[in-house]
Amino acid sequence: MYDRLKGFRDFYPDEMGARREVFDTLEAVARQYGFREVGTPALERTQMYVDKSGEEIVDELYAFEDKGGRAVSLTPELTPTVARMVVAKGQELSKPIKWFSTRPFWRYEQVQQGRFREFYQTNVDIFGSSDPRADAEILAYAADALTALGLTGDDFEFRVSHRDILGGLVRELADDPAAVDTRAAIRAVDKRAKVERAEYLGLLVDAGLDESIAREFDDLIADGNLDAIAAVGDEEVAAAVENLQDVLAAVEDFGAREYCELSLTTARGLDYYTGVVFECFDSTGDVSRAVFGGGRYDDLIESFGGQPTPAVGVAPGHAPLQLLCERAGVWPEEAPSTDYYVLQVGDTETEAAQITRELRVLGHVVETDVAGRSFGAQLEYADGINAETVVIVGEQDLADDAVTIKDMKSGDQTQVSLDDFPPESGRPTYEDYE
Amino acid sequence: MYDRLKGFRDFYPDEMGARREVFDTLEAVARQYGFREVGTPALERTQMYVDKSGEEIVDELYAFEDKGGRAVSLTPELTPTVARMVVAKGQELSKPIKWFSTRPFWRYEQVQQGRFREFYQTNVDIFGSSDPRADAEILAYAADALTALGLTGDDFEFRVSHRDILGGLVRELADDPAAVDTRAAIRAVDKRAKVERAEYLGLLVDAGLDESIAREFDDLIADGNLDAIAAVGDEEVAAAVENLQDVLAAVEDFGAREYCELSLTTARGLDYYTGVVFECFDSTGDVSRAVFGGGRYDDLIESFGGQPTPAVGVAPGHAPLQLLCERAGVWPEEAPSTDYYVLQVGDTETEAAQITRELRVLGHVVETDVAGRSFGAQLEYADGINAETVVIVGEQDLADDAVTIKDMKSGDQTQVSLDDFPPESGRPTYEDYE
Repeated sequence: MYDRLKGFRDFYPDEMGARREVFDTLEAVARQYGFREVGTPALERTQMYVDKSGEEIVDELYAFEDKGGRAVSLTPELTPTVARMVVAKGQELSKPIKWFSTRPFWRYEQVQQGRFREFYQTNVDIFGSSDPRADAEILAYAADALTALGLTGDDFEFRVSHRDILGGLVRELADDPAAVDTRAAIRAVDKRAKVERAEYLGLLVDAGLDESIAREFDDLIADGNLDAIAAVGDEEVAAAVENLQDVLAAVEDFGAREYCELSLTTARGLDYYTGVVFECFDSTGDVSRAVFGGGRYDDLIESFGGQPTPAVGVAPGHAPLQLLCERAGVWPEEAPSTDYYVLQVGDTETEAAQITRELRVLGHVVETDVAGRSFGAQLEYADGINAETVVIVGEQDLADDAVTIKDMKSGDQTQVSLDDFPPESGRPTYEDYE
Repeated sequence: MYDRLKGFRDFYPDEMGARREVFDTLEAVARQYGFREVGTPALERTQMYVDKSGEEIVDELYAFEDKGGRAVSLTPELTPTVARMVVAKGQELSKPIKWFSTRPFWRYEQVQQGRFREFYQTNVDIFGSSDPRADAEILAYAADALTALGLTGDDFEFRVSHRDILGGLVRELADDPAAVDTRAAIRAVDKRAKVERAEYLGLLVDAGLDESIAREFDDLIADGNLDAIAAVGDEEVAAAVENLQDVLAAVEDFGAREYCELSLTTARGLDYYTGVVFECFDSTGDVSRAVFGGGRYDDLIESFGGQPTPAVGVAPGHAPLQLLCERAGVWPEEAPSTDYYVLQVGDTETEAAQITRELRVLGHVVETDVAGRSFGAQLEYADGINAETVVIVGEQDLADDAVTIKDMKSGDQTQVSLDDFPPESGRPTYEDYE
């Protein structure tokens, strides 16, 4: 007996059915927004990740040398791949480019609740627009997708922030702006809720702020008073404040403002974010970490050798989303459903197969015996797959030019003429014949 | 600029849309047959493939050592993984088990037409039934899936064979059955149409048959006269002939006999097949290799440490299937479709966003400007995404409490009152208002 690798999961049909329902919803809403599906490779050159995130990223990758001597990695995220694809087509693609896809990614990291080495995301991105409505459309998409899953404004909130406000404030407040590591300061903000306060302030000091300045900075972002921040900051900060306000106004136009709250203590951990960033949280706090996040990454395409191409996106991860849906009681039921089971008993194989076929042609989910099992075993199987109706095809039934229709909930059954069943259309149940 | 790895593909939206339509069809038909979706890991222990196929298989795998020192491989096929999953649950799963899934697999092999290092398959399997109806259901599923794609009996044929007929004949005809390598002989049959006749006969001789016996064997399987074969063979061959006839009779019951032809020169290359095997071919021969194949593998689960569990399955590969569909002219159109583009011009952002939202709530595919582009640029974009209807939201329109509805095919347009648009239901076009 072989064992599954740690951090990888097998999804049996009940759980997979629920997950599929969730993927389908995330994708159906993306399609309504005019996002188009793309398909992407599972392997890329390791260099692409090293250039973007530094040599230390390799420790977290499934990185290896292929048989042609190439240094390759299982993709840990989609963004570099789609950036590569945008660059490869150059000016051929008309802007804005709106793409989505659902697929697994891989990271060699510690396995914990809701975090695996193989994990699934639905990535949704817009390339080629710096307009606030692009950020707003991503936020509105995410809100629509979650409400389509049955979640409400009481279940989740998007904490919306802006990297240029954080970065601009840091540089404005610092005694020596040239000595400040803005990215390190933003990474410190991302750690704010995850570490002790002293450690957090220490990280800001490590980034080049005096401790008193660090405290002043933290007070400003914790208060989140945009007017006060614009007053303290320079033109860059003022522009970022205006951009953030424009995004929230456009989110209002798209009907999703109620799900968003201003939260300048939100920063996102990845260095490539540039403007508006946001994280989705469980409003009740039961799911303590961010469920997923997104934001703007205006510089990435250019850094990959493409034309300057602003970009914004979001990537709901399915495992944390499952935790939120389960907490909120909207995770889909994990059980199969089946319209008909055609129960074949006696020398009736041909007729049972034909009835099965006719019901499938009508578009229904239909199973029949393919194992030569007894009446009782078939009935038990039909019960296990939650068959709504069992169609019993027995020798006596056929002698009467009929079949027996059995309702699996009540156990009631009745004989129905082959003139009336299978029907020419529709999906009749016992009640239609009783 | 980074390059994509050789043998891997990026699917941009037009091609991906067509592929998605094909996946959806293969999966929808599987669901109608009561197959349930499973989700499976991309990585498994390399040992699983070595035990099944020998040490030389590693040359074809993306095999490497992970950071925990495990020898792992990107999965080259689904069968070992689902066998592992069946074994892991033991008696918990009620039989027959009917599973499907669509996903990529990886093999480090020469790249050629219709063959890639990353390739996609929809796997459909039944575990726990040795009944001929299980084989027949797999064949009927495959036929239904192909006809649902628009293919007809003139486009494809399933060449159906039986490994126990081939193996039994080899042992029966050989002077010294103990000296014959049955698997090697079956692999020789699999090569019959791919190599010169002399080489093929040489392979049979290498497998332990005298050359005259090899010729006699080949005449028997080429003629495919089941009565003659049953007369020559032993009980095992007679039983296999009967099983094959029962499968074809059950396929007839399921309405798929017309797509099947007896072809004992079909063998399938993989060693784990045990009973009925089949390959799908392009009837015109334009696609020269087998499009896909399937068959019985009754011993695999037991060899993985499970209870004896007969199994049968099929796995259409998407790239060869695309070649067949393109040859037959039924590959889906590679172009986006969009119900509405809401064109925003002047100071009408809020109203345009609200109209967009209302149309999306109705379930339509709707795009609007998220890039602050000109009237002309928006119209060009709407044309590029094949928008059926453009809804122009201009300041003058709004002053009239109206929008302008433009038919993108004819270019005709008319003003429609906001009382009538967006509608409460339906998807009205220009013609509904002209």
